[in-house]
Amino acid sequence: MKRQQYVVIGLGRFGSSVAMELVQLGYEVLGIDRNEEVVYTMGDFLTHTVTADATDEEMLRSLGIRNFDCGIVAIGDDIQMSILATILLKEMGLKSVVAKAISTLHGRALEKLGVDRVIYPERDMGVRVAHQLVTPNLVDYIELSKDYRIVELKVPSHLHGHLIGDLNPRARFSCSIVALQKDTGVLIAPTAMDRLDEGDTMVIIGANENIQEFEDVINEED
Amino acid sequence: MKRQQYVVIGLGRFGSSVAMELVQLGYEVLGIDRNEEVVYTMGDFLTHTVTADATDEEMLRSLGIRNFDCGIVAIGDDIQMSILATILLKEMGLKSVVAKAISTLHGRALEKLGVDRVIYPERDMGVRVAHQLVTPNLVDYIELSKDYRIVELKVPSHLHGHLIGDLNPRARFSCSIVALQKDTGVLIAPTAMDRLDEGDTMVIIGANENIQEFEDVINEED
Amino acid sequence: MKRQQYVVIGLGRFGSSVAMELVQLGYEVLGIDRNEEVVYTMGDFLTHTVTADATDEEMLRSLGIRNFDCGIVAIGDDIQMSILATILLKEMGLKSVVAKAISTLHGRALEKLGVDRVIYPERDMGVRVAHQLVTPNLVDYIELSKDYRIVELKVPSHLHGHLIGDLNPRARFSCSIVALQKDTGVLIAPTAMDRLDEGDTMVIIGANENIQEFEDVINEED
Amino acid sequence: MKRQQYVVIGLGRFGSSVAMELVQLGYEVLGIDRNEEVVYTMGDFLTHTVTADATDEEMLRSLGIRNFDCGIVAIGDDIQMSILATILLKEMGLKSVVAKAISTLHGRALEKLGVDRVIYPERDMGVRVAHQLVTPNLVDYIELSKDYRIVELKVPSHLHGHLIGDLNPRARFSCSIVALQKDTGVLIAPTAMDRLDEGDTMVIIGANENIQEFEDVINEED
Amino acid sequence: MKRQQYVVIGLGRFGSSVAMELVQLGYEVLGIDRNEEVVYTMGDFLTHTVTADATDEEMLRSLGIRNFDCGIVAIGDDIQMSILATILLKEMGLKSVVAKAISTLHGRALEKLGVDRVIYPERDMGVRVAHQLVTPNLVDYIELSKDYRIVELKVPSHLHGHLIGDLNPRARFSCSIVALQKDTGVLIAPTAMDRLDEGDTMVIIGANENIQEFEDVINEED
Amino acid sequence: MKRQQYVVIGLGRFGSSVAMELVQLGYEVLGIDRNEEVVYTMGDFLTHTVTADATDEEMLRSLGIRNFDCGIVAIGDDIQMSILATILLKEMGLKSVVAKAISTLHGRALEKLGVDRVIYPERDMGVRVAHQLVTPNLVDYIELSKDYRIVELKVPSHLHGHLIGDLNPRARFSCSIVALQKDTGVLIAPTAMDRLDEGDTMVIIGANENIQEFEDVINEED
Amino acid sequence: MKRQQYVVIGLGRFGSSVAMELVQLGYEVLGIDRNEEVVYTMGDFLTHTVTADATDEEMLRSLGIRNFDCGIVAIGDDIQMSILATILLKEMGLKSVVAKAISTLHGRALEKLGVDRVIYPERDMGVRVAHQLVTPNLVDYIELSKDYRIVELKVPSHLHGHLIGDLNPRARFSCSIVALQKDTGVLIAPTAMDRLDEGDTMVIIGANENIQEFEDVINEED
Amino acid sequence: MKRQQYVVIGLGRFGSSVAMELVQLGYEVLGIDRNEEVVYTMGDFLTHTVTADATDEEMLRSLGIRNFDCGIVAIGDDIQMSILATILLKEMGLKSVVAKAISTLHGRALEKLGVDRVIYPERDMGVRVAHQLVTPNLVDYIELSKDYRIVELKVPSHLHGHLIGDLNPRARFSCSIVALQKDTGVLIAPTAMDRLDEGDTMVIIGANENIQEFEDVINEED
Repeated sequence: MKRQQYVVIGLGRFGSSVAMELVQLGYEVLGIDRNEEVVYTMGDFLTHTVTADATDEEMLRSLGIRNFDCGIVAIGDDIQMSILATILLKEMGLKSVVAKAISTLHGRALEKLGVDRVIYPERDMGVRVAHQLVTPNLVDYIELSKDYRIVELKVPSHLHGHLIGDLNPRARFSCSIVALQKDTGVLIAPTAMDRLDEGDTMVIIGANENIQEFEDVINEED
Repeated sequence: MKRQQYVVIGLGRFGSSVAMELVQLGYEVLGIDRNEEVVYTMGDFLTHTVTADATDEEMLRSLGIRNFDCGIVAIGDDIQMSILATILLKEMGLKSVVAKAISTLHGRALEKLGVDRVIYPERDMGVRVAHQLVTPNLVDYIELSKDYRIVELKVPSHLHGHLIGDLNPRARFSCSIVALQKDTGVLIAPTAMDRLDEGDTMVIIGANENIQEFEDVINEED
Repeated sequence: MKRQQYVVIGLGRFGSSVAMELVQLGYEVLGIDRNEEVVYTMGDFLTHTVTADATDEEMLRSLGIRNFDCGIVAIGDDIQMSILATILLKEMGLKSVVAKAISTLHGRALEKLGVDRVIYPERDMGVRVAHQLVTPNLVDYIELSKDYRIVELKVPSHLHGHLIGDLNPRARFSCSIVALQKDTGVLIAPTAMDRLDEGDTMVIIGANENIQEFEDVINEED
Repeated sequence: MKRQQYVVIGLGRFGSSVAMELVQLGYEVLGIDRNEEVVYTMGDFLTHTVTADATDEEMLRSLGIRNFDCGIVAIGDDIQMSILATILLKEMGLKSVVAKAISTLHGRALEKLGVDRVIYPERDMGVRVAHQLVTPNLVDYIELSKDYRIVELKVPSHLHGHLIGDLNPRARFSCSIVALQKDTGVLIAPTAMDRLDEGDTMVIIGANENIQEFEDVINEED
Repeated sequence: MKRQQYVVIGLGRFGSSVAMELVQLGYEVLGIDRNEEVVYTMGDFLTHTVTADATDEEMLRSLGIRNFDCGIVAIGDDIQMSILATILLKEMGLKSVVAKAISTLHGRALEKLGVDRVIYPERDMGVRVAHQLVTPNLVDYIELSKDYRIVELKVPSHLHGHLIGDLNPRARFSCSIVALQKDTGVLIAPTAMDRLDEGDTMVIIGANENIQEFEDVINEED
Repeated sequence: MKRQQYVVIGLGRFGSSVAMELVQLGYEVLGIDRNEEVVYTMGDFLTHTVTADATDEEMLRSLGIRNFDCGIVAIGDDIQMSILATILLKEMGLKSVVAKAISTLHGRALEKLGVDRVIYPERDMGVRVAHQLVTPNLVDYIELSKDYRIVELKVPSHLHGHLIGDLNPRARFSCSIVALQKDTGVLIAPTAMDRLDEGDTMVIIGANENIQEFEDVINEED
Repeated sequence: MKRQQYVVIGLGRFGSSVAMELVQLGYEVLGIDRNEEVVYTMGDFLTHTVTADATDEEMLRSLGIRNFDCGIVAIGDDIQMSILATILLKEMGLKSVVAKAISTLHGRALEKLGVDRVIYPERDMGVRVAHQLVTPNLVDYIELSKDYRIVELKVPSHLHGHLIGDLNPRARFSCSIVALQKDTGVLIAPTAMDRLDEGDTMVIIGANENIQEFEDVINEED
Repeated sequence: MKRQQYVVIGLGRFGSSVAMELVQLGYEVLGIDRNEEVVYTMGDFLTHTVTADATDEEMLRSLGIRNFDCGIVAIGDDIQMSILATILLKEMGLKSVVAKAISTLHGRALEKLGVDRVIYPERDMGVRVAHQLVTPNLVDYIELSKDYRIVELKVPSHLHGHLIGDLNPRARFSCSIVALQKDTGVLIAPTAMDRLDEGDTMVIIGANENIQEFEDVINEED
């Protein structure tokens, strides 16, 4: 399977982060920005970089953009440029175009133009941060559905040295601990005899209300 | 347990997102911004809102900021204001202060000033988006450690109707399917006899290389 | 038949001209502009006027825009506002939306968003003026097809007092004079015996090359 | 007859449109603009282009502007430059000078300075668009006098397949169909036996009120 | 004879100076400026003052500008406003319109628009100052023709106490001393027996070359 | 006598006018301005020109400014630069420094710094223009004292063909006609038998009130 | 003796510091600044405060500035305003006017205008800081002459517990310790038997070279 | 003892003054500023100068900043740059970092970041100037403690020719004259028989209240 090629338009904080992570994952990335200095700096990290105006159709054609698999329109705060660059990428026939939006109206415009996925980095990160704030032990989480989630929690200090069996989440809260991350590695499907140590994090799956109850109890006791 | 009170300084895209999610999670939130119009709009969503300069010490004192549990400095692109507001919150003795940074140097300044957590919304979201781009079926993921992760994947069409036993991830890729999210609900710890249907997502835990192999295989077959 | 209602967004030179002409033709027109002074001035000429930001969805809803038959997005040089206002009008379900574009890329964006007609006022007027410049007697014209046109020409002075029969355009140039506009009124389908007088204009239909030949001859003789 | 030479000052949307159409009509055009980039782009389309300030008298003299037949002052929104450039063209003795105005006061200034024709592109296009909006089948029109006009109308679907004799415009509405534009060509002075087909447009001449009545009827039946 | 009424448009340094001097000469003056503060300050000195945009036709009409005898367009550096205000004053039928120009091209525009007199304050004052600089005793002068002038000169110290007869300008330089301004009053047509004293100025008429020679001699001896 | 050398600082409308007139009068002039383009243009007219910041002491020294006889600080509207440049010129020991002021406070500052003469071009010209406006026949004038003046008046049409004896100004108005400027030359001390012709101007000396009376009478009769 | 009254013009960092210290020393201070907010804030600290433009002569007169004893022109970076305000204060006859300068040319202008003392806060403070940097124990100093100074030095740790007699500065370095500042108070003219303790500072007088030697030795030993 | 090396960041009025004084005291100084022109000018005075952005970490490393002994962050009014540059200097391990602050909040931020000394040049100079204003004879002073100070006073004219014994400060005011600065040199520990002459300054040590009394008396008598 030939590896996909990505073109990232706009190398601000979000765009450069996407682009560099793609390169680290082993993909080829062409980065485009109007700002020469930004392009110069990113030149050390990306496969190719070009200083160009992303609404300059001729320039985009001459760069062979049509041969890329996926375009990421990561243009900062200039809705007009974001929309015009998106149109050009779509017209050139890229298989997939994702774009960053800074407002819901901007996002709806991008969707109308056929963008495959609209991303709201600040808004989405704000939601994640809010969840972590209200659950001090929360490391990360996945929302499986409106009702179910997986959460990764730091083991609170008052549980250090206890066995999972002592905590007994399945019986008390209808939650399962599906993994225990320890210094020595990740323990998948831990048993009642596995011990919770300082520095461990536990991955728990369950209904939101049950997990909430579980969190409240272990925090309260904290 | 009395519910925590939050003060969010800066109601831009990130700050307003944190603030509104906190309110939805049932907490009291005071939002502060210099921009009157922004404050007016957010007034409908937050517990309290005030138009103020977050570096006006007297104003902050008169708002009783010292009584809040946690401060979120979500000031957009003005590093100076971000730093000065952070100092004021720390000096007022808030238990916890988190702050958004827009560069690593900014982040280091915030850490030196004793901020409990520095957040880089655009950079972190960029990393997430990169992972989702290269794994088209990836819905979300948690990095447990440098080597282990939990991923939520859409079931690719060529697996629709198959049993988990057919796929047999544990034997073939040393990965466990810890949950199966179906229209009808979330199936925790599914068995070999559970069927993968259109619209399902499966939550898999395993070492990165094994999960990568698993993803490649199910995509390739796609 | 109930008369159509129009909403014109942007009351610059083009927008105000459309709006005032629609009112003179007997229709109801709501004019919207961000600029209070402009709105004040146009208040004397249009059925209704409102000072509003055309990307303020709530405001547009409160104005009942959905009940208008046709929206004209005549926003000057702000492509972003033009696009966002267009999306809102389309989403509100107006039967017909026409929009002014200032570049072909802008025009393509508008078309992608489902605009019924894209207008380029300066470009189109430029073409008309060019035709009038190269044919000094040309008053106006309609392009029927790539090959045929109708032109309205001032009668050059050396033809004053001559009969159409003297000119005999049908025989000499395969063109027909379909009307003769005289001080006393318009003479439809004039005959060979009708006389060309000072101040008359003649309406001629024919193939482009024939009309060109006709024009050249009457100018040359001039 | 030697072909006329044109100088177009200001290569914005209107100026460049006039200039390119003149070139396409076979004339020599010198384009002048202050903006180097604009001049560079237009260099591919016009006979000659120069980057110059149109109020720099010496520069204009050195370009031999006096030898041109006609000057078009198409300067965008800078009334001062428009007026000063116009004065220079007039003083150099060009046979004909036309100029774009952006307000009636600007237009009056240009007329006072002896401009042969003042053009208001956006205003005039606004009037045209208004007429087309209220008559959905209207393609184009010529105003012959305050009372008479020629209109080109799309044949509405309910008339497809009918003969002109069925419609009988001359008897019912005192209007004449002077031409029928069909896929196969333009039929001048069609007879009662000619058939109206899908895609045809008909050119009608008549008094405004009669044409209005005719339009209303064929639309109503639509 | 009814005293003339003046309207001065633009109350900058030049305009306010004209306006105040006219008032001191006993005339009625209406001063107009866009700048409210300027208008407020001048309100103490002029007969009437109004804050208005001098290109706002309706406003000018409502002020009854047509009834003034003379308009002075003293608008600072905004050529466009100067020209448009001039047109309005001319169209309103003022008997006389004078205007300040800041460049010869501006001046030519004003002349083309029918201005009765174009004034270049800085240029004209520069010429005067140059003459005074090269003739240290020169107080003021009038150029009668290309060849003749009247000059007012301070009597240099080496002539104090001498009689006009000693100086004998008519014989030596073909110049006449037409007046002698003394502390005690102005002596018209002084004779050879009148004495030149410290603080006197003498008014001399003659051909330029003769006056130059006269000046050189009295300075040289100085 | 060695001819004086002048340095003019600031080559705007006033400065360039002084400088060019000085050159025409046969003196050497060094022109200095910060604006390279201005300096380039003036290079054709002045003896020397330099692009320099007039507050750059080292630069002024390197130009040998101390060797000039007279400095003219003609800096436009930047009071700070005007003052600092004046100080430098004074410190360098120029025999004479004159400076343009734009307000009385500016003028007082210049006087305090020892400037030999402060010039207010716009204000002084405004006064002159006012006098000319109220006396339509006034060409120019010199104020000899608070009470006396010399005026140059166009001969009004109703006096054409009359003898000075008919007008008899000395007897009627206590004014003397000291010169009569005719097409054929200037007639100094004209007699009662000299005739006033069309196109003549007469130079009159007298007390203000008498001259006023004289002017009123000849205008009234006009 | 009636206490002096001060007017401070410009309430930036320097001006407000002067003004507040004067108030603390028991004097009446009127503070003037253009910036309303600054004036509002300082209103709590100064005897009187006024929002005014310090070049508005009429305003200054109405405030009775002439009755103040001393004016401090502490205007930040606007040389023009600084100079014009200084002129007004001098013209009003204040006994003493001191002014802050931001460059030597500015300072020379102020001196020429008769300012009693010109202050360069940043430059003078820079010199002080440099001295303190190179002598880590230096607390403060007075330059008595080019050769002599008084310095206040922290007692370095290696001298703690020693007697002044051990150090014997007069014999070893020809410097006198004129005072010893201890926690318990200041000891004037300490004797050889007085002990140097932690936290003490000693005030030494002597020739620069001797003091330098003394400092070097005590630091070296440190 | 190897001489210390200093790096001064920001070469405005304060920074350049520190840097030049350090060089004059014989130390090596590297000056850094963003402004090329400033760096060019200071190049003549400092050991090394570099045009650089002080927040460009890589640049600072390449300059070997870590090898300097002391850093002075003298950045003008840009709090953000001041803070970020301070962090970099601290992270690079300089032994000592001092920084200029423009507000107390800025100063507190610098202290939190571990700056060894925060300097407020304008504020501190304002305090000094206030003291000098209220004591016209005050030349300089050192505050030894809240209660004691050393002052250097000009000898007022009415004391010229008197002996210190006449003045007898120790008995009358409990103050000691520790030095007398005369034209001929500094007299340390002067006796009752030493005479006060014109141009002398005396250095007095004592409690504030006593010194105040002493000053008041000698001024009063003045």
